[in-house]
Amino acid sequence: MIPPDHPRYRSLITREHLADCARKGVVSWEGLTSHGRGEAFDYLLGEKTSASARRAGKTAAALLRTARHPVISVNGNTAALAAREIALLQKASGALVEVNLFHRTPERVQQIESLLRKAGADVFSGEAERLLPLSHDRAFCRREGMFAADVVLVPLEDGDRCGVLVGMGKKVIAIDLNPLSRTAKTATLTIVDEVTRALPVIADACTALTDEECRELVTVLDNHAFLKEALDEMAARLCHALD
Amino acid sequence: MIPPDHPRYRSLITREHLADCARKGVVSWEGLTSHGRGEAFDYLLGEKTSASARRAGKTAAALLRTARHPVISVNGNTAALAAREIALLQKASGALVEVNLFHRTPERVQQIESLLRKAGADVFSGEAERLLPLSHDRAFCRREGMFAADVVLVPLEDGDRCGVLVGMGKKVIAIDLNPLSRTAKTATLTIVDEVTRALPVIADACTALTDEECRELVTVLDNHAFLKEALDEMAARLCHALD
Repeated sequence: MIPPDHPRYRSLITREHLADCARKGVVSWEGLTSHGRGEAFDYLLGEKTSASARRAGKTAAALLRTARHPVISVNGNTAALAAREIALLQKASGALVEVNLFHRTPERVQQIESLLRKAGADVFSGEAERLLPLSHDRAFCRREGMFAADVVLVPLEDGDRCGVLVGMGKKVIAIDLNPLSRTAKTATLTIVDEVTRALPVIADACTALTDEECRELVTVLDNHAFLKEALDEMAARLCHALD
Repeated sequence: MIPPDHPRYRSLITREHLADCARKGVVSWEGLTSHGRGEAFDYLLGEKTSASARRAGKTAAALLRTARHPVISVNGNTAALAAREIALLQKASGALVEVNLFHRTPERVQQIESLLRKAGADVFSGEAERLLPLSHDRAFCRREGMFAADVVLVPLEDGDRCGVLVGMGKKVIAIDLNPLSRTAKTATLTIVDEVTRALPVIADACTALTDEECRELVTVLDNHAFLKEALDEMAARLCHALD
Protein backbone atom coordinates (compact mmCIF):
# COMPACT_ATOMS: atom_id res chain seq x y z
CA MET A 1 0.00 0.00 0.00
CA ILE A 2 1.21 3.51 -0.76
CA PRO A 3 1.50 5.67 2.38
CA PRO A 4 -0.60 8.89 2.07
CA ASP A 5 2.35 10.91 3.42
CA HIS A 6 4.49 10.00 0.41
CA PRO A 7 5.36 13.25 -1.45
CA ARG A 8 4.60 11.58 -4.78
CA TYR A 9 1.33 10.13 -3.43
CA ARG A 10 -0.86 11.34 -6.29
CA SER A 11 1.53 10.15 -8.97
CA LEU A 12 1.93 6.77 -7.25
CA ILE A 13 -1.82 6.34 -6.79
CA THR A 14 -2.36 7.09 -10.48
CA ARG A 15 0.32 4.56 -11.38
CA GLU A 16 -1.29 1.95 -9.12
CA HIS A 17 -4.69 2.67 -10.64
CA LEU A 18 -3.26 2.16 -14.15
CA ALA A 19 -1.61 -1.08 -13.01
CA ASP A 20 -5.01 -2.25 -11.71
CA CYS A 21 -6.55 -1.34 -15.06
CA ALA A 22 -3.77 -3.31 -16.79
CA ARG A 23 -4.55 -6.36 -14.66
CA LYS A 24 -8.20 -6.07 -15.73
CA GLY A 25 -7.22 -5.64 -19.38
CA VAL A 26 -8.40 -2.04 -19.86
CA VAL A 27 -4.82 -0.73 -20.12
CA SER A 28 -2.19 -2.54 -22.21
CA TRP A 29 1.39 -3.31 -21.12
CA GLU A 30 2.61 -0.72 -23.55
CA GLY A 31 0.16 1.72 -21.95
CA LEU A 32 1.98 1.51 -18.62
CA THR A 33 5.31 2.41 -20.17
CA SER A 34 3.71 5.19 -22.22
CA HIS A 35 2.26 6.63 -19.05
CA GLY A 36 5.74 6.71 -17.53
CA ARG A 37 7.10 8.59 -20.52
CA GLY A 38 4.29 11.11 -20.11
CA GLU A 39 5.08 11.49 -16.42
CA ALA A 40 8.63 12.49 -17.24
CA PHE A 41 7.53 15.24 -19.61
CA ASP A 42 4.91 16.40 -17.10
CA TYR A 43 7.69 16.74 -14.54
CA LEU A 44 9.37 19.13 -16.95
CA LEU A 45 6.14 21.13 -17.19
CA GLY A 46 6.07 21.44 -13.40
CA GLU A 47 2.95 19.22 -13.45
CA LYS A 48 0.73 22.17 -14.25
CA THR A 49 -1.04 23.63 -17.25
CA SER A 50 1.09 26.30 -18.89
CA ALA A 51 -0.37 29.51 -20.33
CA SER A 52 0.47 28.15 -23.78
CA ALA A 53 -1.33 24.84 -23.11
CA ARG A 54 -4.34 26.81 -21.89
CA ARG A 55 -4.45 28.74 -25.17
CA ALA A 56 -4.08 25.45 -27.04
CA GLY A 57 -6.99 24.04 -25.02
CA LYS A 58 -9.17 27.03 -25.93
CA THR A 59 -8.20 26.59 -29.57
CA ALA A 60 -9.23 22.92 -29.30
CA ALA A 61 -12.61 24.06 -28.01
CA ALA A 62 -12.91 26.43 -30.96
CA LEU A 63 -12.17 23.57 -33.39
CA LEU A 64 -14.77 21.35 -31.72
CA ARG A 65 -17.35 24.16 -31.62
CA THR A 66 -16.91 25.01 -35.30
CA ALA A 67 -16.87 21.36 -36.42
CA ARG A 68 -19.62 19.74 -38.47
CA HIS A 69 -19.05 16.27 -37.00
CA PRO A 70 -16.59 16.21 -34.07
CA VAL A 71 -15.46 12.89 -32.59
CA ILE A 72 -13.51 12.14 -29.41
CA SER A 73 -11.42 8.99 -29.82
CA VAL A 74 -10.79 7.12 -26.57
CA ASN A 75 -8.15 4.44 -25.89
CA GLY A 76 -7.39 2.36 -22.78
CA ASN A 77 -5.17 4.87 -20.99
CA THR A 78 -7.57 7.75 -21.60
CA ALA A 79 -10.53 5.75 -20.28
CA ALA A 80 -8.56 4.60 -17.25
CA LEU A 81 -7.32 8.10 -16.41
CA ALA A 82 -10.11 10.40 -17.53
CA ALA A 83 -13.47 8.71 -18.20
CA ARG A 84 -15.34 11.37 -16.22
CA GLU A 85 -13.52 14.24 -17.94
CA ILE A 86 -14.38 12.69 -21.32
CA ALA A 87 -18.06 12.51 -20.35
CA LEU A 88 -18.05 16.16 -19.25
CA LEU A 89 -16.31 17.29 -22.43
CA GLN A 90 -18.85 15.38 -24.46
CA LYS A 91 -21.65 17.26 -22.71
CA ALA A 92 -19.95 20.62 -23.31
CA SER A 93 -19.00 19.97 -26.94
CA GLY A 94 -21.68 17.64 -28.27
CA ALA A 95 -18.97 15.44 -29.83
CA LEU A 96 -19.35 11.71 -30.46
CA VAL A 97 -17.30 9.49 -28.17
CA GLU A 98 -15.80 6.44 -29.90
CA VAL A 99 -13.40 3.78 -28.61
CA ASN A 100 -10.35 3.02 -30.75
CA LEU A 101 -7.56 0.75 -29.57
CA PHE A 102 -4.09 -0.18 -30.71
CA HIS A 103 -4.21 -3.54 -28.92
CA ARG A 104 -7.76 -4.31 -29.97
CA THR A 105 -9.92 -7.20 -28.82
CA PRO A 106 -13.74 -7.22 -28.69
CA GLU A 107 -13.49 -7.75 -24.90
CA ARG A 108 -11.26 -4.71 -24.40
CA VAL A 109 -13.54 -2.54 -26.54
CA GLN A 110 -16.56 -3.63 -24.46
CA GLN A 111 -14.73 -3.10 -21.17
CA ILE A 112 -13.68 0.41 -22.11
CA GLU A 113 -17.11 1.33 -23.51
CA SER A 114 -18.70 0.15 -20.29
CA LEU A 115 -16.21 2.12 -18.19
CA LEU A 116 -17.03 5.28 -20.20
CA ARG A 117 -20.79 4.71 -19.90
CA LYS A 118 -20.48 4.32 -16.14
CA ALA A 119 -18.73 7.70 -16.07
CA GLY A 120 -21.69 9.27 -17.90
CA ALA A 121 -20.53 9.23 -21.51
CA ASP A 122 -22.86 8.41 -24.38
CA VAL A 123 -20.65 6.00 -26.34
CA PHE A 124 -21.04 5.58 -30.08
CA SER A 125 -20.41 1.91 -30.74
CA GLY A 126 -21.97 -0.38 -33.33
CA GLU A 127 -20.07 -2.24 -36.04
CA ALA A 128 -16.46 -1.21 -36.57
CA GLU A 129 -14.89 -1.67 -40.01
CA ARG A 130 -11.30 -1.56 -41.24
CA LEU A 131 -11.61 1.91 -42.75
CA LEU A 132 -8.29 3.66 -42.04
CA PRO A 133 -5.22 2.94 -44.22
CA LEU A 134 -3.19 1.33 -41.41
CA SER A 135 -1.71 -2.16 -41.13
CA HIS A 136 -2.76 -2.81 -37.55
CA ASP A 137 -6.03 -2.90 -35.67
CA ARG A 138 -6.16 0.85 -35.20
CA ALA A 139 -7.50 0.79 -38.77
CA PHE A 140 -10.87 -0.15 -37.26
CA CYS A 141 -13.42 2.60 -36.80
CA ARG A 142 -17.11 3.25 -37.42
CA ARG A 143 -18.30 4.62 -40.77
CA GLU A 144 -20.65 7.12 -39.15
CA GLY A 145 -18.17 7.89 -36.36
CA MET A 146 -14.52 8.75 -36.80
CA PHE A 147 -14.52 7.92 -40.53
CA ALA A 148 -17.07 10.69 -41.18
CA ALA A 149 -15.58 13.17 -38.70
CA ASP A 150 -14.13 16.51 -39.74
CA VAL A 151 -12.51 17.14 -36.34
CA VAL A 152 -11.09 14.35 -34.16
CA LEU A 153 -9.78 14.78 -30.64
CA VAL A 154 -7.23 12.05 -29.93
CA PRO A 155 -5.90 12.12 -26.39
CA LEU A 156 -2.75 9.95 -25.99
CA GLU A 157 -2.63 8.91 -29.64
CA ASP A 158 0.08 7.01 -31.52
CA GLY A 159 1.88 8.84 -34.30
CA ASP A 160 0.84 6.53 -37.14
CA ARG A 161 -2.86 6.99 -36.73
CA CYS A 162 -2.59 10.70 -36.14
CA GLY A 163 -0.78 11.04 -39.47
CA VAL A 164 -3.37 8.94 -41.28
CA LEU A 165 -6.28 11.00 -39.94
CA VAL A 166 -4.58 14.24 -40.99
CA GLY A 167 -3.90 12.67 -44.39
CA MET A 168 -7.64 11.99 -44.75
CA GLY A 169 -8.22 15.75 -44.45
CA LYS A 170 -9.43 15.75 -40.86
CA LYS A 171 -8.41 18.29 -38.28
CA VAL A 172 -6.73 16.33 -35.49
CA ILE A 173 -6.41 17.64 -31.94
CA ALA A 174 -3.83 15.71 -29.92
CA ILE A 175 -3.19 15.81 -26.19
CA ASP A 176 0.42 14.74 -25.78
CA LEU A 177 2.91 15.53 -23.03
CA ASN A 178 5.82 14.89 -25.38
CA PRO A 179 6.21 17.89 -27.71
CA LEU A 180 8.77 15.89 -29.72
CA SER A 181 6.52 12.91 -30.51
CA ARG A 182 5.41 12.19 -34.06
CA THR A 183 1.82 12.73 -32.89
CA ALA A 184 2.64 16.18 -31.51
CA LYS A 185 4.36 17.23 -34.71
CA THR A 186 1.75 15.72 -37.06
CA ALA A 187 -1.48 16.88 -35.41
CA THR A 188 -3.33 20.00 -36.53
CA LEU A 189 -3.21 21.16 -32.92
CA THR A 190 -1.32 19.64 -30.00
CA ILE A 191 -2.11 20.40 -26.38
CA VAL A 192 1.07 19.67 -24.45
CA ASP A 193 -0.54 18.90 -21.11
CA GLU A 194 -1.65 16.05 -18.88
CA VAL A 195 -4.97 14.62 -20.04
CA THR A 196 -7.01 15.13 -16.83
CA ARG A 197 -5.91 18.77 -16.73
CA ALA A 198 -6.34 19.43 -20.45
CA LEU A 199 -9.86 18.01 -20.92
CA PRO A 200 -11.59 20.35 -18.41
CA VAL A 201 -9.87 23.38 -19.99
CA ILE A 202 -11.37 22.38 -23.35
CA ALA A 203 -14.79 21.70 -21.79
CA ASP A 204 -14.87 25.07 -19.99
CA ALA A 205 -13.88 26.91 -23.17
CA CYS A 206 -16.56 25.05 -25.19
CA THR A 207 -19.12 26.72 -22.92
CA ALA A 208 -17.44 30.10 -22.49
CA LEU A 209 -16.25 31.09 -25.98
CA THR A 210 -18.36 33.25 -28.29
CA ASP A 211 -18.74 32.23 -31.95
CA GLU A 212 -16.48 35.10 -32.95
CA GLU A 213 -13.76 34.07 -30.50
CA CYS A 214 -13.97 30.53 -31.90
CA ARG A 215 -13.50 31.75 -35.49
CA GLU A 216 -10.53 33.90 -34.47
CA LEU A 217 -8.78 31.14 -32.50
CA VAL A 218 -9.11 28.77 -35.46
CA THR A 219 -7.75 31.40 -37.85
CA VAL A 220 -4.58 32.09 -35.87
CA LEU A 221 -3.86 28.41 -35.00
CA ASP A 222 -0.09 27.74 -35.20
CA ASN A 223 0.85 24.30 -33.90
CA HIS A 224 4.58 24.80 -34.40
CA ALA A 225 4.40 27.82 -32.10
CA PHE A 226 2.55 25.82 -29.42
CA LEU A 227 5.21 23.08 -29.57
CA LYS A 228 8.03 25.60 -29.47
CA GLU A 229 6.47 27.26 -26.40
CA ALA A 230 6.18 23.89 -24.66
CA LEU A 231 9.81 23.02 -25.44
CA ASP A 232 10.99 26.43 -24.22
CA GLU A 233 8.98 26.01 -21.04
CA MET A 234 10.57 22.61 -20.39
CA ALA A 235 14.05 23.84 -21.23
CA ALA A 236 13.66 26.85 -18.93
CA ARG A 237 12.56 24.60 -16.09
CA LEU A 238 15.55 22.34 -16.69
CA CYS A 239 17.92 25.31 -16.72
CA HIS A 240 16.56 26.87 -13.54
CA ALA A 241 15.65 23.68 -11.73
CA LEU A 242 18.55 23.88 -9.33
CA ASP A 243 18.59 27.67 -8.79
CA MET B 1 8.76 -10.29 -33.66
CA ILE B 2 10.39 -6.86 -33.39
CA PRO B 3 12.44 -6.43 -36.58
CA PRO B 4 16.19 -5.98 -35.76
CA ASP B 5 16.44 -3.09 -38.21
CA HIS B 6 13.76 -1.11 -36.33
CA PRO B 7 15.30 2.24 -35.32
CA ARG B 8 14.03 1.73 -31.77
CA TYR B 9 14.99 -1.99 -31.70
CA ARG B 10 17.03 -1.92 -28.49
CA SER B 11 14.43 0.17 -26.66
CA LEU B 12 11.57 -2.10 -27.81
CA ILE B 13 13.44 -5.30 -26.90
CA THR B 14 14.17 -3.91 -23.43
CA ARG B 15 10.51 -2.96 -22.99
CA GLU B 16 9.39 -6.44 -24.05
CA HIS B 17 11.93 -8.03 -21.67
CA LEU B 18 10.63 -5.90 -18.78
CA ALA B 19 7.04 -6.85 -19.61
CA ASP B 20 8.09 -10.54 -19.49
CA CYS B 21 9.72 -9.91 -16.12
CA ALA B 22 6.51 -8.23 -14.93
CA ARG B 23 4.49 -11.30 -15.97
CA LYS B 24 6.87 -13.46 -13.91
CA GLY B 25 6.64 -11.10 -10.93
CA VAL B 26 10.26 -9.87 -10.90
CA VAL B 27 9.26 -6.41 -12.09
CA SER B 28 6.24 -4.72 -10.54
CA TRP B 29 3.56 -3.23 -12.79
CA GLU B 30 4.57 0.14 -11.42
CA GLY B 31 8.14 -0.69 -12.44
CA LEU B 32 7.03 -0.60 -16.09
CA THR B 33 5.85 2.97 -15.61
CA SER B 34 9.12 3.95 -13.94
CA HIS B 35 10.95 2.51 -16.90
CA GLY B 36 8.89 4.64 -19.27
CA ARG B 37 9.78 7.70 -17.27
CA GLY B 38 13.45 6.83 -17.52
CA GLU B 39 13.11 6.31 -21.29
CA ALA B 40 11.90 9.89 -21.72
CA PHE B 41 14.83 11.37 -19.82
CA ASP B 42 17.28 9.10 -21.62
CA TYR B 43 15.88 10.36 -24.90
CA LEU B 44 16.76 13.89 -23.74
CA LEU B 45 20.31 12.67 -23.04
CA GLY B 46 20.59 11.34 -26.59
CA GLU B 47 20.68 7.81 -25.09
CA LYS B 48 24.40 7.99 -24.40
CA THR B 49 26.70 8.50 -21.42
CA SER B 50 27.72 12.15 -21.19
CA ALA B 51 31.23 13.23 -20.17
CA SER B 52 29.69 14.48 -16.94
CA ALA B 53 28.01 11.13 -16.19
CA ARG B 54 31.31 9.38 -16.88
CA ARG B 55 33.05 11.58 -14.27
CA ALA B 56 30.18 10.88 -11.85
CA GLY B 57 30.66 7.14 -12.47
CA LYS B 58 34.37 7.41 -11.66
CA THR B 59 33.51 9.31 -8.50
CA ALA B 60 31.08 6.54 -7.55
CA ALA B 61 33.93 4.05 -7.96
CA ALA B 62 36.08 6.22 -5.69
CA LEU B 63 33.34 6.24 -3.02
CA LEU B 64 32.99 2.44 -3.21
CA ARG B 65 36.75 1.91 -3.13
CA THR B 66 37.25 4.15 -0.07
CA ALA B 67 34.22 2.70 1.79
CA ARG B 68 34.49 0.58 4.92
CA HIS B 69 31.30 -1.37 4.20
CA PRO B 70 29.81 -0.68 0.73
CA VAL B 71 26.43 -2.14 -0.22
CA ILE B 72 24.68 -2.31 -3.60
CA SER B 73 20.89 -2.22 -3.16
CA VAL B 74 18.99 -4.00 -5.93
CA ASN B 75 15.29 -3.74 -6.80
CA GLY B 76 13.18 -5.51 -9.43
CA ASN B 77 13.91 -3.19 -12.37
CA THR B 78 17.65 -3.19 -11.68
CA ALA B 79 17.73 -7.00 -11.50
CA ALA B 80 15.66 -7.33 -14.69
CA LEU B 81 17.78 -4.84 -16.62
CA ALA B 82 21.26 -5.28 -15.22
CA ALA B 83 21.82 -8.45 -13.15
CA ARG B 84 25.05 -9.21 -14.99
CA GLU B 85 26.35 -5.66 -14.65
CA ILE B 86 25.58 -5.80 -10.90
CA ALA B 87 27.55 -9.06 -10.59
CA LEU B 88 30.52 -7.56 -12.45
CA LEU B 89 30.44 -4.41 -10.33
CA GLN B 90 30.38 -6.54 -7.20
CA LYS B 91 33.51 -8.37 -8.36
CA ALA B 92 35.27 -5.08 -9.13
CA SER B 93 34.20 -3.29 -5.94
CA GLY B 94 33.85 -6.01 -3.32
CA ALA B 95 30.51 -4.53 -2.24
CA LEU B 96 27.68 -6.53 -0.67
CA VAL B 97 24.66 -7.03 -2.93
CA GLU B 98 21.32 -6.84 -1.11
CA VAL B 99 17.76 -6.93 -2.47
CA ASN B 100 15.39 -4.19 -1.29
CA LEU B 101 11.94 -3.77 -2.78
CA PHE B 102 9.17 -1.20 -2.65
CA HIS B 103 6.53 -3.79 -3.52
CA ARG B 104 7.93 -6.43 -1.20
CA THR B 105 6.80 -10.04 -0.92
CA PRO B 106 8.99 -12.97 0.18
CA GLU B 107 8.42 -14.58 -3.23
CA ARG B 108 9.62 -11.50 -5.12
CA VAL B 109 12.70 -11.20 -2.90
CA GLN B 110 13.56 -14.85 -3.60
CA GLN B 111 12.94 -14.52 -7.34
CA ILE B 112 15.20 -11.50 -7.60
CA GLU B 113 17.90 -13.02 -5.43
CA SER B 114 17.86 -16.11 -7.61
CA LEU B 115 18.06 -14.01 -10.79
CA LEU B 116 21.08 -12.17 -9.39
CA ARG B 117 22.78 -15.40 -8.33
CA LYS B 118 22.28 -16.87 -11.81
CA ALA B 119 24.03 -13.79 -13.19
CA GLY B 120 27.01 -14.47 -10.93
CA ALA B 121 26.32 -12.18 -7.95
CA ASP B 122 26.97 -13.28 -4.37
CA VAL B 123 23.73 -12.09 -2.74
CA PHE B 124 23.61 -11.14 0.92
CA SER B 125 20.23 -12.34 2.15
CA GLY B 126 19.22 -13.68 5.56
CA GLU B 127 16.64 -12.16 7.87
CA ALA B 128 15.42 -8.67 6.96
CA GLU B 129 14.13 -6.38 9.72
CA ARG B 130 12.20 -3.14 9.68
CA LEU B 131 15.23 -0.96 10.41
CA LEU B 132 14.80 2.19 8.32
CA PRO B 133 12.48 4.98 9.51
CA LEU B 134 10.00 4.61 6.65
CA SER B 135 6.29 3.83 6.68
CA HIS B 136 6.31 1.25 3.88
CA ASP B 137 8.08 -2.04 3.20
CA ARG B 138 11.21 -0.35 1.94
CA ALA B 139 11.95 0.01 5.68
CA PHE B 140 13.10 -3.63 5.58
CA CYS B 141 16.82 -4.32 5.35
CA ARG B 142 19.45 -6.52 6.97
CA ARG B 143 21.27 -5.38 10.11
CA GLU B 144 24.67 -6.50 8.82
CA GLY B 145 23.89 -5.34 5.28
CA MET B 146 22.52 -1.94 4.31
CA PHE B 147 21.86 -0.90 7.92
CA ALA B 148 25.59 -1.17 8.71
CA ALA B 149 26.79 0.28 5.38
CA ASP B 150 28.72 3.54 5.11
CA VAL B 151 28.29 3.76 1.31
CA VAL B 152 25.15 2.52 -0.49
CA LEU B 153 24.72 2.36 -4.25
CA VAL B 154 21.02 2.59 -5.07
CA PRO B 155 20.26 2.25 -8.78
CA LEU B 156 16.69 3.32 -9.60
CA GLU B 157 15.82 4.29 -6.03
CA ASP B 158 12.77 6.14 -4.68
CA GLY B 159 13.38 9.51 -3.07
CA ASP B 160 12.07 8.63 0.39
CA ARG B 161 14.52 5.89 1.03
CA CYS B 162 17.41 7.81 -0.44
CA GLY B 163 16.69 10.68 1.97
CA VAL B 164 16.44 8.33 4.93
CA LEU B 165 19.76 6.66 4.12
CA VAL B 166 21.48 10.04 3.81
CA GLY B 167 19.83 11.09 7.09
CA MET B 168 21.40 8.03 8.74
CA GLY B 169 24.82 9.42 7.80
CA LYS B 170 25.46 7.11 4.85
CA LYS B 171 26.94 8.21 1.55
CA VAL B 172 24.35 7.38 -1.10
CA ILE B 173 25.18 6.92 -4.77
CA ALA B 174 22.09 7.07 -7.00
CA ILE B 175 21.74 6.14 -10.65
CA ASP B 176 18.78 8.17 -11.87
CA LEU B 177 17.92 9.41 -15.36
CA ASN B 178 15.81 12.19 -13.85
CA PRO B 179 18.11 14.93 -12.56
CA LEU B 180 15.11 16.63 -10.93
CA SER B 181 13.96 13.68 -8.85
CA ARG B 182 14.12 13.84 -5.09
CA THR B 183 16.54 10.92 -5.23
CA ALA B 184 18.86 12.81 -7.58
CA LYS B 185 18.83 15.92 -5.39
CA THR B 186 19.09 14.07 -2.07
CA ALA B 187 21.84 11.58 -2.90
CA THR B 188 25.47 12.25 -2.05
CA LEU B 189 26.26 11.54 -5.69
CA THR B 190 23.91 11.05 -8.63
CA ILE B 191 24.89 9.46 -11.90
CA VAL B 192 22.42 10.73 -14.48
CA ASP B 193 22.63 7.84 -16.89
CA GLU B 194 20.92 4.63 -17.93
CA VAL B 195 21.69 1.82 -15.50
CA THR B 196 23.27 -0.69 -17.93
CA ARG B 197 25.59 2.04 -19.24
CA ALA B 198 26.42 3.49 -15.80
CA LEU B 199 27.31 0.27 -13.95
CA PRO B 200 30.19 -0.81 -16.25
CA VAL B 201 31.68 2.70 -16.04
CA ILE B 202 31.79 2.34 -12.25
CA ALA B 203 33.17 -1.21 -12.43
CA ASP B 204 35.95 -0.22 -14.85
CA ALA B 205 36.93 2.73 -12.67
CA CYS B 206 36.97 0.52 -9.54
CA THR B 207 39.75 -1.45 -11.21
CA ALA B 208 41.57 1.42 -12.91
CA LEU B 209 41.76 4.18 -10.28
CA THR B 210 44.76 4.59 -8.00
CA ASP B 211 44.19 5.19 -4.27
CA GLU B 212 45.29 8.79 -4.72
CA GLU B 213 42.86 9.36 -7.59
CA CYS B 214 40.09 7.91 -5.43
CA ARG B 215 40.84 10.30 -2.56
CA GLU B 216 40.94 13.27 -4.93
CA LEU B 217 37.64 12.39 -6.66
CA VAL B 218 35.91 12.04 -3.28
CA THR B 219 37.35 15.40 -2.11
CA VAL B 220 36.08 17.38 -5.11
CA LEU B 221 32.66 15.63 -5.28
CA ASP B 222 29.99 18.22 -6.17
CA ASN B 223 26.60 16.60 -6.82
CA HIS B 224 24.96 19.93 -7.63
CA ALA B 225 27.46 20.44 -10.45
CA PHE B 226 26.78 16.96 -11.85
CA LEU B 227 23.02 17.61 -11.83
CA LYS B 228 23.48 21.04 -13.40
CA GLU B 229 25.55 19.55 -16.22
CA ALA B 230 22.91 16.89 -16.90
CA LEU B 231 20.14 19.52 -16.92
CA ASP B 232 22.09 21.76 -19.30
CA GLU B 233 22.66 18.83 -21.63
CA MET B 234 18.93 18.01 -21.71
CA ALA B 235 17.90 21.66 -22.08
CA ALA B 236 20.22 22.14 -25.05
CA ARG B 237 18.68 19.09 -26.74
CA LEU B 238 15.12 20.42 -26.10
CA CYS B 239 15.94 23.90 -27.41
CA HIS B 240 17.24 22.61 -30.73
CA ALA B 241 14.67 19.84 -31.15
CA LEU B 242 12.52 21.68 -33.68
CA ASP B 243 15.38 23.37 -35.56
